[in-house]
Amino acid sequence: MATRHIISIGDFDRDGIDQLLDHAEQIDNRKYDAGALGGRILAVLFFEPSTRTRMSFESAMARLGGTSLSVGSVDACSMAKGETLADTIRVVSGYADAIVIRHPKEGAARLAAEFSTVPVINAGDGAGQHPSQTLLDLYTIRQSMPIDGIDVALIGDLRYGRTAHSLASALSLYNARLHTISPKGLELPSNLVMDLREKGMEITEHDDIREIIGLVDVLYVTRIQRERFPDSASYFNVATSYRITPELLADAKKHLIVLHPLPRVDEIDPRVDDSPHARYFEQSKNGVPVRMAMLMRVLQ
Amino acid sequence: MATRHIISIGDFDRDGIDQLLDHAEQIDNRKYDAGALGGRILAVLFFEPSTRTRMSFESAMARLGGTSLSVGSVDACSMAKGETLADTIRVVSGYADAIVIRHPKEGAARLAAEFSTVPVINAGDGAGQHPSQTLLDLYTIRQSMPIDGIDVALIGDLRYGRTAHSLASALSLYNARLHTISPKGLELPSNLVMDLREKGMEITEHDDIREIIGLVDVLYVTRIQRERFPDSASYFNVATSYRITPELLADAKKHLIVLHPLPRVDEIDPRVDDSPHARYFEQSKNGVPVRMAMLMRVLQ
Amino acid sequence: MATRHIISIGDFDRDGIDQLLDHAEQIDNRKYDAGALGGRILAVLFFEPSTRTRMSFESAMARLGGTSLSVGSVDACSMAKGETLADTIRVVSGYADAIVIRHPKEGAARLAAEFSTVPVINAGDGAGQHPSQTLLDLYTIRQSMPIDGIDVALIGDLRYGRTAHSLASALSLYNARLHTISPKGLELPSNLVMDLREKGMEITEHDDIREIIGLVDVLYVTRIQRERFPDSASYFNVATSYRITPELLADAKKHLIVLHPLPRVDEIDPRVDDSPHARYFEQSKNGVPVRMAMLMRVLQ
Repeated sequence: MATRHIISIGDFDRDGIDQLLDHAEQIDNRKYDAGALGGRILAVLFFEPSTRTRMSFESAMARLGGTSLSVGSVDACSMAKGETLADTIRVVSGYADAIVIRHPKEGAARLAAEFSTVPVINAGDGAGQHPSQTLLDLYTIRQSMPIDGIDVALIGDLRYGRTAHSLASALSLYNARLHTISPKGLELPSNLVMDLREKGMEITEHDDIREIIGLVDVLYVTRIQRERFPDSASYFNVATSYRITPELLADAKKHLIVLHPLPRVDEIDPRVDDSPHARYFEQSKNGVPVRMAMLMRVLQ
Repeated sequence: MATRHIISIGDFDRDGIDQLLDHAEQIDNRKYDAGALGGRILAVLFFEPSTRTRMSFESAMARLGGTSLSVGSVDACSMAKGETLADTIRVVSGYADAIVIRHPKEGAARLAAEFSTVPVINAGDGAGQHPSQTLLDLYTIRQSMPIDGIDVALIGDLRYGRTAHSLASALSLYNARLHTISPKGLELPSNLVMDLREKGMEITEHDDIREIIGLVDVLYVTRIQRERFPDSASYFNVATSYRITPELLADAKKHLIVLHPLPRVDEIDPRVDDSPHARYFEQSKNGVPVRMAMLMRVLQ
Repeated sequence: MATRHIISIGDFDRDGIDQLLDHAEQIDNRKYDAGALGGRILAVLFFEPSTRTRMSFESAMARLGGTSLSVGSVDACSMAKGETLADTIRVVSGYADAIVIRHPKEGAARLAAEFSTVPVINAGDGAGQHPSQTLLDLYTIRQSMPIDGIDVALIGDLRYGRTAHSLASALSLYNARLHTISPKGLELPSNLVMDLREKGMEITEHDDIREIIGLVDVLYVTRIQRERFPDSASYFNVATSYRITPELLADAKKHLIVLHPLPRVDEIDPRVDDSPHARYFEQSKNGVPVRMAMLMRVLQ
C-alpha cells in the first residue's frame, strides 16, 4: 500500500497528526492557494449514505479548486451490482486522482487501497475507522486548549460509536485521561480499553456524568440509537439520564467544551446551543479545513 | 434575518425587482464576469424533487465560476433523519457560502434563514413562496413589453398553483389588470383576491378564456393536476376546455405571449410551440440569468 | 440535425474516426488545454443508471475545465413525469452547452437531437448505439496494434450486446476479420451479419474459442446475463465454457489483447488480470481521453 493513502488514524504518529492539524489551521486562517487542486478530480464513492461527510469532502475539494465526482449509495450499488469491490476501485481509479470511500463493511477501505492506482481516503468503513472525523475532533479540541494531559469524558453509546473508539486511540498519543459514561451493554469494548491501558492511558468508568462534570475539559457526546433498546420506555429512560442540559453544565469548568459528531437527536438539549461550552457546530464546520489538509496531503 | 436572504417575492419592492431584472438583462447580454463567484460554494438542499429548478440554479452558479454541492431529496431525507431542520441548516452553513432550499412545508425557508450563518434562497416551500420563479416570469414578460398596466390572464389551477399567487402579487406592483379563468373549486384563494384588490388591483373572473382572448397581453397557463378531480372523465372535460390551441390564439392580440412554469402535460397543444406567441421555453431558459443575478445579489 | 451531434458510430467515416482517435491520443499525452471548456456546462441526462459511463463523461468534462450538471435516473424520471422527451430536452437545452443522454429506448438520442438547441451525445439508447464505447474500444486496440486487417474474436452474448454490434460495424471500416463465438440463441443478429458481409467483411462463426485462440489479435468479451437462461444450471454451463482463463490464453498470440466493456462477472477469470494480455482496465480508463476528444468536437 502506498504511503499516501489515509485509511486509519493509527497510520499516523503524533507528529503526523500535529503536522496535519497545523496545516488545517493555516488553511483556516485563509493561508492557502485556492487553485492548489485545480483540474484534479476526487471520486467520492459512498456505498452507504452519509450526506454530511460527503458534502464536507466535496466542499473541501471545491475550496481548493478541484472537482468531485460524486457516486451516491444508490449509484454505487448499481455500479457494484455483481462486480467485486476490487474491479469497481480499478475502474474508478481510471477516472479520478483520488478516491474517498465509505462502505458498510469493516476493512473495505484498506482493500480498496490495495487495488487503487490513486490515493484512497477512508470516510468510514463499518465498525472500522473514520480518520477524518477523529482529526476534526482533535482540531476542535486544539482550538480551545492544548490537548496534552486533558481530561476527556466520552458519554453515550461507546460500544458501537466508532468515532469514540478512534478518538480514544488518538488521545492516547496526547497523554489525555479518559472518563467513560455509558448505558449497560454499550460500554467501550474491553479489548480497546485493555489496549489503551497498555499504552499507558488512564481510563475511569463512571455511573453518572454528574460525578465528574466539574473535572473534565472535554465532554464528547455520542448518539444513543433507539434500536439498541428492547422498548421505547428503556430508551427514553436512558436518553433522559444521558441528556446534556444547561443545568448539568452549570457545574462544569468554565473552559469545558461539548462535542458531538452529529446528527444529535435527544442527547443535547437545544438550550445548550447558545452556551459558550457548545462547540459541535464549529466541530462540524472544522471538517472542511481538516479535509482540505487531508486532500492536499494525498494529492500534492 | 439578514437582508441578504431571498425568501419571498414580498421581500422586494418594485425598485428592488427592477434592479434585479436589469442585472439579469445585463447578464443575458453576456456583460458579466464569468469568474465572479470563483471558489464560492452553493449548497443546493432539496427536500423534495425539482430537477428543473435545481439544474437552473446549478447552471447559474457554474456560469459564474462557482461550485454547487447538490443534496437531492433522497440524501436530504437521510441527512435530516431525526434531526431538526435547524440543525441541518447550521451544519450545511458550515460547508457553503449560500444555501438554496426547497422544502414541502410552507415557512421552511424562513425558518432556515433564521438558523443559517450564510444567505438562504427559497426555491419553493410548500404552498408558500418561490421567488425565483416569479422573477423569471416577470423577466420574460419584460422581454416582450413594459409590464406597467398590462392585462394578464391566469388560467388553470389557481388555487394550488403557488407560481400564480406570487406572480399576481408581484404584478400588483406594476398596476397590471388580472383576469382569472379556473375550474370550479380551483379559483384564486379569496383572501389573496381581497388582498390584491386592497392594493388597488383590478381582478375579473371569467368563465371562458375565449371571452377575453382578444384583450389580454399575457396568458399565464398553469398545470391542472389530474389528482384534483374525482374521476378521469371530469379531468378530461376540464383539460379539454382549458387547453390552449392555435385556434384559440387566432383571435389573440399579435403581441400576446403564452407562459407556463412547465412541465406542461395537456394544457398547451404542442402545435402552439411554433407560434410566435409561445414563450414558455424562453421563460424556462431565462431562469439561468435571473438566478445568476440572484446569486450575485446574495453572494457579493 | 446539426452536424455537431454524435448519435451513432455510423455518423463517422473512417477519417472521422481516425481524427478523433488521433486527438484522443494527443490528449492522453497531456497535449491539451486544461481550461479549454472553462465555463462550459454539460448536462448529463441519464434515464437509466450507468454510473461508469456517467463518471467517465464527467471526468472528461472536468479535465477540460468544464462543469457537469448531473441528472441521475431517479431525477430524470421525476423530471420527465408526464412530460414528453421533446419538452425535457428543450428545457435542458436552456441550461447547458451540450447534452449527454442515456435512455432505455432505441432512437431516443436521435429524437433528442432534433429538439435540442445544443449538441447531443448519445451515451447509449436501448438496443441502439453507444458511440463513445466503440471509439474507446478502437482506441484501446490502436494502442497495441494497427487496426487494419486484424482478426477480432467477439465472444459472449452477441445478440443483445450493443457494444459488440457497434464495434463490428466500425471494424468493417478497417478491413478486420470477425470471429464470433456465442451460446445458442445469443448469436450476432443475422441482418447485421448480412449487412457487414455486404460491406465486404469476413465473418466466421465458431463453436469454441479454443479453435481460434492461436489466430486472433483481439478477444472482445461481453457479458452473458443470467436472465437470458431458463435456469441457473444452463447459465452455469455456458458461463463456464465461455470463461476466459490463463490456461486458454497460454495458446494465444503473444500480442493478443483481451477487452471487455465491464462490468465483468464470471466471464474473465481474475487470474487473467495480471497477464500482459489483459487490457480491460486500460480500456475503461481510455474512456476519459476519448470522451474529452468527443466533448471538444461538439463544444468547440
